[in-house]
Amino acid sequence: MRIITISREFASGGRELGKRLADALGFQYYDSEIIDEIVRHTDFDAGFIDKVSDGEVSFNFHFGRSFGFSVNQPAIDVLAAQHKVITELAQRRDCVIVGRLADIILVKEHPLKIFVYSDREHKIARCKERGELHPEATDRQIIRKCRQIDLNRRRTHDTFAPEKWGDRRGYNLCINTAGVDIKTLIPGLKEYALAFFESLKKEV
Amino acid sequence: MRIITISREFASGGRELGKRLADALGFQYYDSEIIDEIVRHTDFDAGFIDKVSDGEVSFNFHFGRSFGFSVNQPAIDVLAAQHKVITELAQRRDCVIVGRLADIILVKEHPLKIFVYSDREHKIARCKERGELHPEATDRQIIRKCRQIDLNRRRTHDTFAPEKWGDRRGYNLCINTAGVDIKTLIPGLKEYALAFFESLKKEV
Repeated sequence: MRIITISREFASGGRELGKRLADALGFQYYDSEIIDEIVRHTDFDAGFIDKVSDGEVSFNFHFGRSFGFSVNQPAIDVLAAQHKVITELAQRRDCVIVGRLADIILVKEHPLKIFVYSDREHKIARCKERGELHPEATDRQIIRKCRQIDLNRRRTHDTFAPEKWGDRRGYNLCINTAGVDIKTLIPGLKEYALAFFESLKKEV
Repeated sequence: MRIITISREFASGGRELGKRLADALGFQYYDSEIIDEIVRHTDFDAGFIDKVSDGEVSFNFHFGRSFGFSVNQPAIDVLAAQHKVITELAQRRDCVIVGRLADIILVKEHPLKIFVYSDREHKIARCKERGELHPEATDRQIIRKCRQIDLNRRRTHDTFAPEKWGDRRGYNLCINTAGVDIKTLIPGLKEYALAFFESLKKEV
């Protein structure tokens, strides 16, 4: 199977890029399907699963004075289910998976691991255009929100991966969407992805 | 003009990628031509120019006890000539320029700024394959050499650029060549580059 994982900074257009790329390639696009599948495998509701998946829930609690810590078992259970679901989905057909630690979970399948990022100015523009926050939010509030979401993603990712979130060494391709039109980029990115899978065959 | 700048870790295949990409696109490839042009503009010999250009020469000397420092005027002169030459060459025709601070010098021309990198294992393999060091060099010696060259590039770059060398935010695209065949990647990368320039038109 050919698998593309998309990790991304909030408001960089990573999800849009992933969806459009999947459509262009005729690959399956997995996003909320993963949550639905986890709901079927566990007793948790979709809201909690989404929070765990996006890093809004911690996995362990450290105690101040002792060296002990206790794990957040429900969060761990969700992650275990997510691991299982993503592994299974990736075996079914060629796919693009956005977020959800898929780059780490599927590392042995040789996915094309993409990291999508942008700059301050274009993130603010994107958030305003899409109404991600309330209409009167200032630029500063928007950027604070972006940073918070990225911090959550970073924390979850770094708990499980050898390379840090966003560190180029953990990805095959890092794409800066600042100042470029994502839709126009897709035909080229599609060809790049196909060439990548072709070139893997020669090396592996 | 459409300009592609390639920055790269030593032994990542950045030069090969740049040359092949230029050929595929029908763009001019500038490498030693830049040195030749600087030779014409200055009194320095090619060897010294190459050393300055690749960061092997410092631009200023700090004095231990005082707060003063003195600049290395010949090195500064070479850099000034390099700046002039690159600016002129980039106005002549579509081109790919590897290294030589072209990403910084040409930033206002909206180049496609690519950073090429790889991992330890593949850098060692590449160096051995190409005989970059003496045949008995150990893996450790090879990696030490790679680090030293990258450190020089980093130092020169960071003296003049707002973003640090290799920091994804300073580039439009970061490409990991570890485990992929560069030659096979080129047709896809060519399409990506064309899509990038197309998409810039829509945004600018």
